[in-house]
Amino acid sequence: MSRRIGIIINGATGGLARHQHLAALLALRAEGGLVLADGDRLMPELTLVGRNEDRLAAVAAQIDAARWTTDLDGALSDPANDVFFDAAATAGRFAVVRNAIRAGKHVYCEKPVAGTLQDAMELVRAAQAAGVKSGTVQDKIFLPGFRKLRMLRDASFFGRILEVRLEFGRWIFDGEHQRAQRPSWNYRKADGGGLILDMFPHWRYMIEHLAGAITAVNCTCRTHIARRRDEGGRPYAVDVEDSAFAHVELEGGAIASVNSSWCTRVRRDDIIVVQVDGARGSAVATAHDCWTQSDVNTPSPTISVEARQPQNFYQQWLAVPDNSAVTNSYRAGWELFLRHVADDEPFPFTLLEGAKGVQLAELSYRANAERRWVNVPALNVDGPAMQ
Amino acid sequence: MSRRIGIIINGATGGLARHQHLAALLALRAEGGLVLADGDRLMPELTLVGRNEDRLAAVAAQIDAARWTTDLDGALSDPANDVFFDAAATAGRFAVVRNAIRAGKHVYCEKPVAGTLQDAMELVRAAQAAGVKSGTVQDKIFLPGFRKLRMLRDASFFGRILEVRLEFGRWIFDGEHQRAQRPSWNYRKADGGGLILDMFPHWRYMIEHLAGAITAVNCTCRTHIARRRDEGGRPYAVDVEDSAFAHVELEGGAIASVNSSWCTRVRRDDIIVVQVDGARGSAVATAHDCWTQSDVNTPSPTISVEARQPQNFYQQWLAVPDNSAVTNSYRAGWELFLRHVADDEPFPFTLLEGAKGVQLAELSYRANAERRWVNVPALNVDGPAMQ
Amino acid sequence: MSRRIGIIINGATGGLARHQHLAALLALRAEGGLVLADGDRLMPELTLVGRNEDRLAAVAAQIDAARWTTDLDGALSDPANDVFFDAAATAGRFAVVRNAIRAGKHVYCEKPVAGTLQDAMELVRAAQAAGVKSGTVQDKIFLPGFRKLRMLRDASFFGRILEVRLEFGRWIFDGEHQRAQRPSWNYRKADGGGLILDMFPHWRYMIEHLAGAITAVNCTCRTHIARRRDEGGRPYAVDVEDSAFAHVELEGGAIASVNSSWCTRVRRDDIIVVQVDGARGSAVATAHDCWTQSDVNTPSPTISVEARQPQNFYQQWLAVPDNSAVTNSYRAGWELFLRHVADDEPFPFTLLEGAKGVQLAELSYRANAERRWVNVPALNVDGPAMQ
Amino acid sequence: MSRRIGIIINGATGGLARHQHLAALLALRAEGGLVLADGDRLMPELTLVGRNEDRLAAVAAQIDAARWTTDLDGALSDPANDVFFDAAATAGRFAVVRNAIRAGKHVYCEKPVAGTLQDAMELVRAAQAAGVKSGTVQDKIFLPGFRKLRMLRDASFFGRILEVRLEFGRWIFDGEHQRAQRPSWNYRKADGGGLILDMFPHWRYMIEHLAGAITAVNCTCRTHIARRRDEGGRPYAVDVEDSAFAHVELEGGAIASVNSSWCTRVRRDDIIVVQVDGARGSAVATAHDCWTQSDVNTPSPTISVEARQPQNFYQQWLAVPDNSAVTNSYRAGWELFLRHVADDEPFPFTLLEGAKGVQLAELSYRANAERRWVNVPALNVDGPAMQ
Repeated sequence: MSRRIGIIINGATGGLARHQHLAALLALRAEGGLVLADGDRLMPELTLVGRNEDRLAAVAAQIDAARWTTDLDGALSDPANDVFFDAAATAGRFAVVRNAIRAGKHVYCEKPVAGTLQDAMELVRAAQAAGVKSGTVQDKIFLPGFRKLRMLRDASFFGRILEVRLEFGRWIFDGEHQRAQRPSWNYRKADGGGLILDMFPHWRYMIEHLAGAITAVNCTCRTHIARRRDEGGRPYAVDVEDSAFAHVELEGGAIASVNSSWCTRVRRDDIIVVQVDGARGSAVATAHDCWTQSDVNTPSPTISVEARQPQNFYQQWLAVPDNSAVTNSYRAGWELFLRHVADDEPFPFTLLEGAKGVQLAELSYRANAERRWVNVPALNVDGPAMQ
Repeated sequence: MSRRIGIIINGATGGLARHQHLAALLALRAEGGLVLADGDRLMPELTLVGRNEDRLAAVAAQIDAARWTTDLDGALSDPANDVFFDAAATAGRFAVVRNAIRAGKHVYCEKPVAGTLQDAMELVRAAQAAGVKSGTVQDKIFLPGFRKLRMLRDASFFGRILEVRLEFGRWIFDGEHQRAQRPSWNYRKADGGGLILDMFPHWRYMIEHLAGAITAVNCTCRTHIARRRDEGGRPYAVDVEDSAFAHVELEGGAIASVNSSWCTRVRRDDIIVVQVDGARGSAVATAHDCWTQSDVNTPSPTISVEARQPQNFYQQWLAVPDNSAVTNSYRAGWELFLRHVADDEPFPFTLLEGAKGVQLAELSYRANAERRWVNVPALNVDGPAMQ
Repeated sequence: MSRRIGIIINGATGGLARHQHLAALLALRAEGGLVLADGDRLMPELTLVGRNEDRLAAVAAQIDAARWTTDLDGALSDPANDVFFDAAATAGRFAVVRNAIRAGKHVYCEKPVAGTLQDAMELVRAAQAAGVKSGTVQDKIFLPGFRKLRMLRDASFFGRILEVRLEFGRWIFDGEHQRAQRPSWNYRKADGGGLILDMFPHWRYMIEHLAGAITAVNCTCRTHIARRRDEGGRPYAVDVEDSAFAHVELEGGAIASVNSSWCTRVRRDDIIVVQVDGARGSAVATAHDCWTQSDVNTPSPTISVEARQPQNFYQQWLAVPDNSAVTNSYRAGWELFLRHVADDEPFPFTLLEGAKGVQLAELSYRANAERRWVNVPALNVDGPAMQ
Repeated sequence: MSRRIGIIINGATGGLARHQHLAALLALRAEGGLVLADGDRLMPELTLVGRNEDRLAAVAAQIDAARWTTDLDGALSDPANDVFFDAAATAGRFAVVRNAIRAGKHVYCEKPVAGTLQDAMELVRAAQAAGVKSGTVQDKIFLPGFRKLRMLRDASFFGRILEVRLEFGRWIFDGEHQRAQRPSWNYRKADGGGLILDMFPHWRYMIEHLAGAITAVNCTCRTHIARRRDEGGRPYAVDVEDSAFAHVELEGGAIASVNSSWCTRVRRDDIIVVQVDGARGSAVATAHDCWTQSDVNTPSPTISVEARQPQNFYQQWLAVPDNSAVTNSYRAGWELFLRHVADDEPFPFTLLEGAKGVQLAELSYRANAERRWVNVPALNVDGPAMQ
């Protein structure tokens, strides 16, 4: 048998919505829907929402079987829609998600779930009060390389985890001689820009998933490139950080070095590289790969003042093989969330988890301002977050 | 013509003294001495000093033309000795260098020049008052890879320097199943141990030489492995850090991430890797190599959730060639210091520079204790260091 | 909304017209027209003109939506046609472009825009007097490799530009044992043939775009292969040069070596290779690639009389990455010209620029005849060109 | 039986004299002398002459069996010396060679044989009048790659030779950030410096040997880098060219492009690369290698505006194999000259040939000054050189 589930896709014309989320849902549709616990198939019925009629129509034309509208309120008041998904601009997220909760929709949204922790917690409490289900996209957990890294942790490969290094970044051109690879809103506070707000929500769930709970953060950020050119070639001033250097403490004493920068050039395995060092072994992971070196394979190198380093440090690591086929990371999130809604299966990536990402970003900004470590307290759903 | 210069080598039986400093001085002797400005040749005459007669005799036997004694005071009172060099244990350095200064010897010593900034500055002032010349070993400056990195800075390759990453470390076994690669005194406070005191004096001069003056430091350290086995296989407790994560601010706004650990496994080009990112280009250097990527060669990579990273980020860098023959890094320091003593040529690596290294270590310990950034003030030779 | 623009394609059955220009315009049509500043779409409507009815009909049949005729005058008198484009034989260009201007059409044409500078300037003045817009095809500017080279110049990669090497050529068979790869008219003066008239218009805009304004030229040419066989296998005498060696002086003192030959075999990266040497770095570009070597990566090679060269000089260069998607080079020209006509946007590649190409060719012939350097004066639109 | 021949090596402490010429003569000595036509062995007995006693003594100490003196006149008046060889500074060559001729010595010397054609011809006539034998070093002819190229010419591989390309050069640092690889006198006119005077004597004999007699030259030169630092780091002004672009006409109509620069970076097979294109085939040679492409192997490449060049132009050439063992190029010259002296065998590389090299340099300077082609007349030993 087949059941239907109505899903509003807000911000449907954006790249993330089209290339990842719509693609994942359309793949589900093409396969006849998601198979549920009782064998039924759950068929997503999509309503695309956006602000530009022409672009909406163009997206809808490419994927038949989708309705579209610029009237978000209308879509929210339509009882045929069960789920509200938001991938629109960060600056507007809080308001539209709150409205969706008020309209009784289950909500699923991109990160950051709000611009401030207070707003994020208000959404958490509103969803709890309304009795709707909620979720936040935590796609990187499902990437093959980070799945492997988690598998290593679950398999006690590391022994006690001691250190984590997360290196993220690449060079974003300023638009002067080469076109910038990121949209200009990323560099404007009022539009929800900033590297910390953009990336630290990812780091929160990744580090906690891969290594352990975060208890404190120290962070220093910079605006290295203060003037840039936008999509039309017009110069503008940058008022957010384009680089952030953080240290993070984990439960049990481990420490993480977390470098994030749009002003660095990459000499490492990938744009995001996570290294975990444990007493029994270490691993380095990228989105698709993971390499290990256990204690018994650890070399004993030295530096000579006379001769080049004879050791090739890259050849001393062994790849974790691709033993299992991996679901697309965005689709994996959707499948879990839809089962949560349709079958009431547990779902770990609630809005509260999304709020934790906002919390880490917010406390990192505070640590930068106060030039000191800041504790990361547990979030209290029943009262104001204490810090 | 030939002149002689008497040099006391204190701690002559240690590995650093034998393999590096004695080797450098013996090479000078073998070539007939160091050629001075007036064409004269300066011939070093060595007196080896240590505490163990048998080992001293053995070292002296390997290198004829050297006298040896366990009586340091006697050697210091011998007017034939002009220079006192100390490569003995860190914990005793302050006392022996002070005695040498009092005996009117020019002093040259390994880092750290003392265990505390106060002691280091006392040595600086004592040398100044005594009118003797002083120097501290800053060998890494002369390694080919870091020479190249400095050349890039001098040639304005970087444009404005934005970020520095210094990754140092390797895994030091705890002596349980594999022998530890470092002596046990390195893990005991009372013996002058500790990763910060050992390495941060290097980081001070390297970062300032390669990127810019340090104005503030933030540091967090750990003792990850609290019990180890010593050279004799006996267990002992570690009471110093074996890992330190620091951020350092430089004049002009650049920031450095400085990770140092004896509890990490190496997946990078070498044990010490320095990356400098500038507006016009970036470089990565090890002891012997240096690779660059300029703005015009900077790629525009992305991460795909479906496919492995198609870019090889290591092939996007170009080596700085070995255009000039390079003097051994320890010998380079000796040549400069001996010309400073004999010809009064300028010498940048004075005891005050050595004191700066101790200062950075000391302030890093304080930053760790107070969990906050600490400014790094200019050192005042005429009064107490202000902080 | 949609606007239409009528374009006459003269010489529509030639390879260049069909494979490049028609292909570019048909691609625009297939996408619904060119998007203008106000969001309107400009739809090209094509009229193919040629001398051979059968071949015209065949071309038109391949691309529906195009009218065709052998009556050029009729097409010019049709007010539905706005633009006249000429890719017909070089020898007839002056007359047909002049007629098009007289008919009030905007004109866009292949190089050389005329056979002599006097004719070219007459076209420039006629277009100015008639108030029509004019353009000349300068396609090589838009090829990815030369775009990258220009980006390097804009990014000040070179520092002061010192030298340029342009190597062009390949072996053109004489038709004796293997079929000639170029049409026989290229080897006959009366038909507008000659390597200089063919290629130097390209060199003029390429060198000026990539390195700097040309102030003087010296050129020596040869007819190495004096007898060839034509398309039908019939022998004929060559009365134009098939090889030309030029030196060109640029504003600021740089000098270019420009070798062009149909009698050379290729041992380099491509048929056209441009090298620019500057004080801070050098680059080598082909149509699609560009490699750099900056001052800091410059090696210090020597030649040994005993041993082979140990350096691989090709591996000492780093590719400029393909960071941006690139529009087809002919289409890029059309888009700019159509925006110039429809939106009055600026267009740098006017007929005057085309005349400069003819000027360089003409002065190169003179330099060859007089065996001396010839200055390249600024072109005076209001009076006769002074030399 | 054994004969002796006394040879004065003037300028014996220079690198060229020591590493090449002395090495070649010592190798002859080590083998028991040069075997002559009658089976006798000719043993060179060397007298080293220079200006610095210490350096002379040091060179002499390394090679026993050599006498040394700073008294050149004394050496010239010693009847035991038969041959005078000069590798001392260019600026002094004319005077010392003239003195040697007056002293009745056979003379052999490095290029350029004099600073002006008039001086060179005076030496030619003096040697003729004195009845002594004379020679000039033309070492590059004997390098394996250029021997192969000459073999190709002798084997009629090329058919009619049409074009020659000679690319010479590399980047010479200005001494600012990296040490200059050439001595500072090369950049000072008064010391005999200048790229043309240094290299064009080579080009004269190489081009004539490899492709044909030179009949005219056109040349334009530049001083791109006007300020440099000398061996001691002191800044100095450059008053000679560091770059020269020449065209050369050969008997029979061929033309050569000859680019020489100390301000270019190398993307080709070697520092010196010679390409010869003929009607039947082409070849490219470096000092040690030579590759050919005959007419039947010639490809027919094109450039696509859409796709990268699919042809690898380097793989379309085939190496000329190392079929014969090759004598060191400097030793080969000495063997020929010594047989010329001892056995009266013919010797092609007379002082007159050396004078031709000076002539090409001198006329190239004139062409540069007059901005026109200059004919290269035959040299008239019996009267003044006519031009």
